[in-house]
Amino acid sequence: MSQLLRVQNFTVSSDGIAAGENQSFESPFGLDHGEMLEWAGATASWPNRTEPGGSRGLDDYFTRDFAHNIGAEIMGRNKFGPQRGPWADHEWLGWWGDEPPFHTPVFVMTHYERPSFTLGDTTFHFVDGDPATVLEQAKKAADGKDVRLGGGVTTVKEFLDADLVDTLHVVVSPVTFGNGLRLWGSPDELLDRFHFDVVPSPSGVTHHLFWRK
Amino acid sequence: MSQLLRVQNFTVSSDGIAAGENQSFESPFGLDHGEMLEWAGATASWPNRTEPGGSRGLDDYFTRDFAHNIGAEIMGRNKFGPQRGPWADHEWLGWWGDEPPFHTPVFVMTHYERPSFTLGDTTFHFVDGDPATVLEQAKKAADGKDVRLGGGVTTVKEFLDADLVDTLHVVVSPVTFGNGLRLWGSPDELLDRFHFDVVPSPSGVTHHLFWRK
Repeated sequence: MSQLLRVQNFTVSSDGIAAGENQSFESPFGLDHGEMLEWAGATASWPNRTEPGGSRGLDDYFTRDFAHNIGAEIMGRNKFGPQRGPWADHEWLGWWGDEPPFHTPVFVMTHYERPSFTLGDTTFHFVDGDPATVLEQAKKAADGKDVRLGGGVTTVKEFLDADLVDTLHVVVSPVTFGNGLRLWGSPDELLDRFHFDVVPSPSGVTHHLFWRK
Repeated sequence: MSQLLRVQNFTVSSDGIAAGENQSFESPFGLDHGEMLEWAGATASWPNRTEPGGSRGLDDYFTRDFAHNIGAEIMGRNKFGPQRGPWADHEWLGWWGDEPPFHTPVFVMTHYERPSFTLGDTTFHFVDGDPATVLEQAKKAADGKDVRLGGGVTTVKEFLDADLVDTLHVVVSPVTFGNGLRLWGSPDELLDRFHFDVVPSPSGVTHHLFWRK
């Protein structure tokens, strides 16, 4: 079995928006994303869950697949933090506290060098390269397992444009933003290259599942 | 997280039938089950898949969850083989050849003693006990992971009657048999004890997901 590049649990609004234009420390998504992510937080397998309970229906299959057979993650710099340009210092260690939910090597794409560091069992590497080169590095680190493409939206689009994504799971939430960074105008844009299942969940979101033709 | 007892990918006909009355070596399900199981065979993660390819849409989430966080399986004797009564000999090693797809300890429920044996990385134990006792043994062997209740239909019903099942995934296939061993008259029979998602798949089957209230 070859190693796949997988986008998972990537949530957008009904108008295809994944993030706002103005990300900040106070607003990691640059918009009020709480309602958009409720579907995931309600599941038993949500990685950030701190209390017992949670649903074990359809949505839980998706959240519990988050780490399944994943050996590395690739993320854009804007998922890692709100800073832009050269690093002022190396104090920022991501949004996730002492135990980031990745538990694998993570490759952060940035044009600005920075030393790798380890938090819990997650090691962050900072890499400057085109998507194909970074994917090659991540696959090597993943040791035979798949690679998760963690976002944000600009990074997902770069890898889609380079035709490097093997499977893509997009959750469309019934909220509308109007303005922001858009994954797509419509899922139909991907149908020339991908098979497609669309699955309405009883929770109110709609799962969109694409896999390479 | 406590250990769950999970029924997964358990497929029945539109009239709730999982097996025929007359199981035999030639007919492991006692009926012509090929069409009923097509949904699983079409997926990339079907454990018995020998060739590359296969779908990676909704149905694949279910087949790839088969072994995820599972540390042991419990099965009825009729899933293990077509024999009834005392073992004539110990030559029958199951339907699955030299590499059974379980890769964990498997507890076969039978009133007739038989020594354990190992094939590949699956060890079969033969246990005579009520469901609660067998579940206790399986949980111990599962080493903190969940236990899969593998069937057949009589065994699933025994554990449901004893209220020991935590999550139940039943796939309803659009075939009809009329006669055979029935899991249920209707899924509604379980709604007093379980939450319930019903999810039609683009493949034509309908996934029924139950989790304990």
